[in-house]
Amino acid sequence: MLPESIYKKLTEPESVALVGVTSRTGRGSNSPLEVLLKRGYQGRIYPVNRKGGELLGRRTYTSLQEVPEIPDLAVICAPRRAVIELFSQCADKGVEVVIITAQGFFDGDEAGFKMQQELFDLAAKSKTRILGPNTLGIVNNYHNFCTSFIDFANPVKPIGITCQTGTFYLGASQLCTGIGIIVDSGNTADISVTDVLGYLARDPNLKVINIHMESLPHGGTRFMEAAKDAVALMPVIIYKTGSSPAGSLAASSHTGSLSGEDRVFEAAFKQSGVIRAADIEELGDLNKAFCTFNGIKGKRIGVVSISGGAGVMAVDACTRLGLEIATPSQATFDQLEELFPSWAHCSNPMDMWPTSYINGYQNSYRRILEAYLEDPEIDAVICMTGSFLPPEEDFLDVTGVIRGIAGRYPDKPVVVSSCGNYYRYYEEELEKENTVVYYFSLDRAARALAGLYRYHHQIKNKDHRTAVPAVHPGQSQAAALLAGKTGNLSQADALSLVDSYGIPTASWGQAADLVEAKALAAEIGYPVTMKILSPDIVHKSDVGGVRLNIQNAHELEEAFTAMYTAINQKLPDARLDGVVIQEHLPQGLELLLGSKRDPAFGPVLAFGAGGIYTEILDDVSLRVTPLSREEIKEMIGETKISKILAGARGAAAVDQELLISCLANLSDLVLANPSISEMDLNPLIAYPDRVVALDARVILG
Amino acid sequence: MLPESIYKKLTEPESVALVGVTSRTGRGSNSPLEVLLKRGYQGRIYPVNRKGGELLGRRTYTSLQEVPEIPDLAVICAPRRAVIELFSQCADKGVEVVIITAQGFFDGDEAGFKMQQELFDLAAKSKTRILGPNTLGIVNNYHNFCTSFIDFANPVKPIGITCQTGTFYLGASQLCTGIGIIVDSGNTADISVTDVLGYLARDPNLKVINIHMESLPHGGTRFMEAAKDAVALMPVIIYKTGSSPAGSLAASSHTGSLSGEDRVFEAAFKQSGVIRAADIEELGDLNKAFCTFNGIKGKRIGVVSISGGAGVMAVDACTRLGLEIATPSQATFDQLEELFPSWAHCSNPMDMWPTSYINGYQNSYRRILEAYLEDPEIDAVICMTGSFLPPEEDFLDVTGVIRGIAGRYPDKPVVVSSCGNYYRYYEEELEKENTVVYYFSLDRAARALAGLYRYHHQIKNKDHRTAVPAVHPGQSQAAALLAGKTGNLSQADALSLVDSYGIPTASWGQAADLVEAKALAAEIGYPVTMKILSPDIVHKSDVGGVRLNIQNAHELEEAFTAMYTAINQKLPDARLDGVVIQEHLPQGLELLLGSKRDPAFGPVLAFGAGGIYTEILDDVSLRVTPLSREEIKEMIGETKISKILAGARGAAAVDQELLISCLANLSDLVLANPSISEMDLNPLIAYPDRVVALDARVILG
Repeated sequence: MLPESIYKKLTEPESVALVGVTSRTGRGSNSPLEVLLKRGYQGRIYPVNRKGGELLGRRTYTSLQEVPEIPDLAVICAPRRAVIELFSQCADKGVEVVIITAQGFFDGDEAGFKMQQELFDLAAKSKTRILGPNTLGIVNNYHNFCTSFIDFANPVKPIGITCQTGTFYLGASQLCTGIGIIVDSGNTADISVTDVLGYLARDPNLKVINIHMESLPHGGTRFMEAAKDAVALMPVIIYKTGSSPAGSLAASSHTGSLSGEDRVFEAAFKQSGVIRAADIEELGDLNKAFCTFNGIKGKRIGVVSISGGAGVMAVDACTRLGLEIATPSQATFDQLEELFPSWAHCSNPMDMWPTSYINGYQNSYRRILEAYLEDPEIDAVICMTGSFLPPEEDFLDVTGVIRGIAGRYPDKPVVVSSCGNYYRYYEEELEKENTVVYYFSLDRAARALAGLYRYHHQIKNKDHRTAVPAVHPGQSQAAALLAGKTGNLSQADALSLVDSYGIPTASWGQAADLVEAKALAAEIGYPVTMKILSPDIVHKSDVGGVRLNIQNAHELEEAFTAMYTAINQKLPDARLDGVVIQEHLPQGLELLLGSKRDPAFGPVLAFGAGGIYTEILDDVSLRVTPLSREEIKEMIGETKISKILAGARGAAAVDQELLISCLANLSDLVLANPSISEMDLNPLIAYPDRVVALDARVILG
Repeated sequence: MLPESIYKKLTEPESVALVGVTSRTGRGSNSPLEVLLKRGYQGRIYPVNRKGGELLGRRTYTSLQEVPEIPDLAVICAPRRAVIELFSQCADKGVEVVIITAQGFFDGDEAGFKMQQELFDLAAKSKTRILGPNTLGIVNNYHNFCTSFIDFANPVKPIGITCQTGTFYLGASQLCTGIGIIVDSGNTADISVTDVLGYLARDPNLKVINIHMESLPHGGTRFMEAAKDAVALMPVIIYKTGSSPAGSLAASSHTGSLSGEDRVFEAAFKQSGVIRAADIEELGDLNKAFCTFNGIKGKRIGVVSISGGAGVMAVDACTRLGLEIATPSQATFDQLEELFPSWAHCSNPMDMWPTSYINGYQNSYRRILEAYLEDPEIDAVICMTGSFLPPEEDFLDVTGVIRGIAGRYPDKPVVVSSCGNYYRYYEEELEKENTVVYYFSLDRAARALAGLYRYHHQIKNKDHRTAVPAVHPGQSQAAALLAGKTGNLSQADALSLVDSYGIPTASWGQAADLVEAKALAAEIGYPVTMKILSPDIVHKSDVGGVRLNIQNAHELEEAFTAMYTAINQKLPDARLDGVVIQEHLPQGLELLLGSKRDPAFGPVLAFGAGGIYTEILDDVSLRVTPLSREEIKEMIGETKISKILAGARGAAAVDQELLISCLANLSDLVLANPSISEMDLNPLIAYPDRVVALDARVILG
């Protein structure tokens, strides 16, 4: 946890020391002192440089010791070779939080790796917290404070940004559309994205939080908790990079940590209510919407368009994004129909070109937009107009009309797109009073409204709290079974483990040889299935180690011999401990239930199509544990196979409660037994009133 | 077919009559005469207006008869009530092509619908061709010609555009980035997108074609032929709207025609080599690339970045789009390593910030970019830089450096993105000499390179010609079987039909009652499958009309009785004609082969996962017929289930030639028998050396 006092000293310091600040000034000097003075920072500044003297009219201290107080914050501006010594001085002085800008630590060579480790150890000993290294630090536009050595264009918008790269810092005005506060954690030796989330979310100056993340070096669980807390207060939008395997590798050489599997991040974001932006344009577009509109009542969209063709585009975009095309009330149509020539339809989307000949473009636009915003059947309006004439000749200019009307209906978002070269004029004019947002395309306009809807109706008021798992009655049996074991669990142990946590398995037993196998099969009752028992074979069916639907003792004997022969040929070194004999089950729906321990998030559950379809069709949904039964239900519902479970094509539906219980038990099992690094039940066969695990694979590590 | 002479008269007329032109002039007058004069059109202009007199210093004719020649082109500018009369005058005069701008035809009420029909009939009689109605007509920037009544900003770029909406026409400079020639076919009463494709593709002024399409009122087959012809000459990019069901409905009220199923369009575009842009930004981005770069040698991308974080983003984007991150040659690294501090890696993506401290930013950028472009292991370069300083203070400005170097390597595309507020300055400066393209984001930069690669390596030189299907030996048998039939074909007829075209079916026969069924089963040999035989039941398994794996006569009897009882209960009115008895086949891979007649494209083939998985997993690929065996192979390869066919997870691979033959036969069958409106084989079961259709459903219409 980052104490609030440290966060305040970091983002609103009353005094700051610039340790190792360059003595150069002017163009290309990269002087953070120069930037800070230019920003009009009102706190006390202590430049520190061995040469001493004066810098930009300020006394410069030859060492931190000389500084007449303990500054709230120190920024170490020196190259990496000097960093450790300077950090020690900061710690000795009693500075509580230090920003380290230099590169060449986890992002550099082995020596750099060691230095970052050393910094971390020093910080732990001294209780001095670190932001960085490899960071540009802080901007707080509400405090005129900035630690960057480059002064960049920086429109003030109520956006709190926390990121891991200087690109985001310097490009924030382009990528996020503006900055309120930015915290760049760089290599994240200490203070992380997670640490600052809660403080940003409680800042009354801000309306939306942006995260840029490559990895979660300090763990996913804490991040999820912080995010769940934050999204209840304010929308949180994340731009996650390092999402491809190659990108993850590049990220690891950038900030020194592997980013982990992207699908797990995706699940964690979804569970936390964090909105993931697909690209920087979506990030900026959502920011504009959240900075302008405080809500949206529903998802019924009115479309007012200069042309029918653009109306079609708007409908495509809205539909794709799950918005609805509003059906305006009859009163609205009655009122508007008189504007149109007799041959024209009055419908939503409203193609208003035919009316403009009769009633003038601006006048028609005003009448239609007002009627739409008055209509209780419409929750928001997308306007499309023409921007193809130079502003000074533009007799179709409706920027004033739209801005004026939209200002009177603050509860109904109005977003605008246009066609034509002068769209930047439209953007500027329309957004002047912060009542309307302009988007380059109708797709982007619709996407922004969909984001507003999602946050206000599906995220903000949802209970994101994490269920605390109770101790399962099977825990002592499971713990005993796992004690001292490593590697792949035997088939028998794996099934027993699953059994112990209340997940039904088919009747089964193990047999060391053919004689035992025959006796066992007779006991279980034919038909049976036989599987090889070997600590060396993971994918049994790949080597002929599975025989289904054996009808009698004679068939069993044949199958046993054939199986041993085949495996001895393919894998002569594999140890064969006999076979598992299992009740043969009638055809049902094959499912997969699985779990894998993620380095950042801990055990992650997987659910999806089983058997050969698992890997091929990739119809699998993931969730980070622990999770509620409600979340398990959502998880199941995300897969395509869930439609079959619900009883598609005349098939009987499967009792979902049984399945939910299996997943809940599996979650309890992997949470309570950290030695399980990976496991799956594949297939688990589902019938209308029964689910049965046929096979279990457990890897300890 | 549109004769070349008509296309020339439409786009490069030597004389034009503006029939019904407004007598108003100035702001808001919507006068096409004013626009045409302003454009500096050098041909002869004949304004026609009942009032006569003079307009903008030109003699105005009171009727077309008065005009002293037969103009190449007439533009009817009057509202719809006057259109038919004016069109007749044009036809009487002998004008060969007419543009009709008015709205209110197929896009209006019933009267308008009839008027468009009447226009079409008149045109057929008189041989006068029509562009429109509901169109803004033509722009030809190489002829200073324009028929619009609004003069819009219009940068000249070598782009040929053909569209169905005024939005695209007026917004082209924003949506497409510029215009060379534009043809708006509006409601497409006559001249269509298809008609002009070939002429645009042969125009030496142009480098890329853009299509905006809502529907194909004049058929898909001709469009595909024209498109295949065009893509061999020039990239063709399409922006298809009306893609959602709601959007299709909106399109139908816009231009009066339903757009058809989007997935079929998707298949047709793919088969024709037309690149589909997901949104208008992709359209503009690809245009910029195709207007600037004549090719790209491969897909190995070098990344030069101001920051490591941005390098990660570039890698994500390239990987997602199927590009490769280049491995530069050792010589390149050897040469560049000296630029870097000892702790830094020299790798691709190249984070060049650490060198800029030592060697200066511009100098480092120059050295790295040159080395990359010299390296034979790199085919194209994505540059990322900072645009966060005002141009006059920007000591990191590398626009001149990049532009200069890129100009020397015309065979290697260089695209640039940046972070920071002043990106518009970067865009303008970099694109000055048409050697480099700037993109707002790295995602968009990578997408443009991927588009270049796709066109030059996967489309341009591919043989898109359509295979002409030979007459299948089974045709006379099939024709006899189908003669006089309508509605659902019986199971027996359906299987016979499939048989006749050489698609293997399981041994089967039909039985009118239980006695016959028993005899048949004995003949075929147990185990057998039994299915109800009824003209009234399409989905047999939904009503208990299918029983698998019947082992003996006793089981058969039980099953027969149970089936009849169940169906009589569920569907008391269904006619039951007995049962089909079929050889029971061992488990294999269930596939779906199907076909459906599309209103625009004719028979469309479908291939994918069969059985219950078909609808649920939606793993189906489509192709328009006819198609080559090579295309069938691609079609199969597009599905996820093809991985199982290829032998995933130790399963034996299925002989794909057998499957290709089935699809080729199915294609021949539906092409030769137009009465088949829909059919499927589901499941077709695939084994390593055999494929067998188990069930066939054929609907005649």
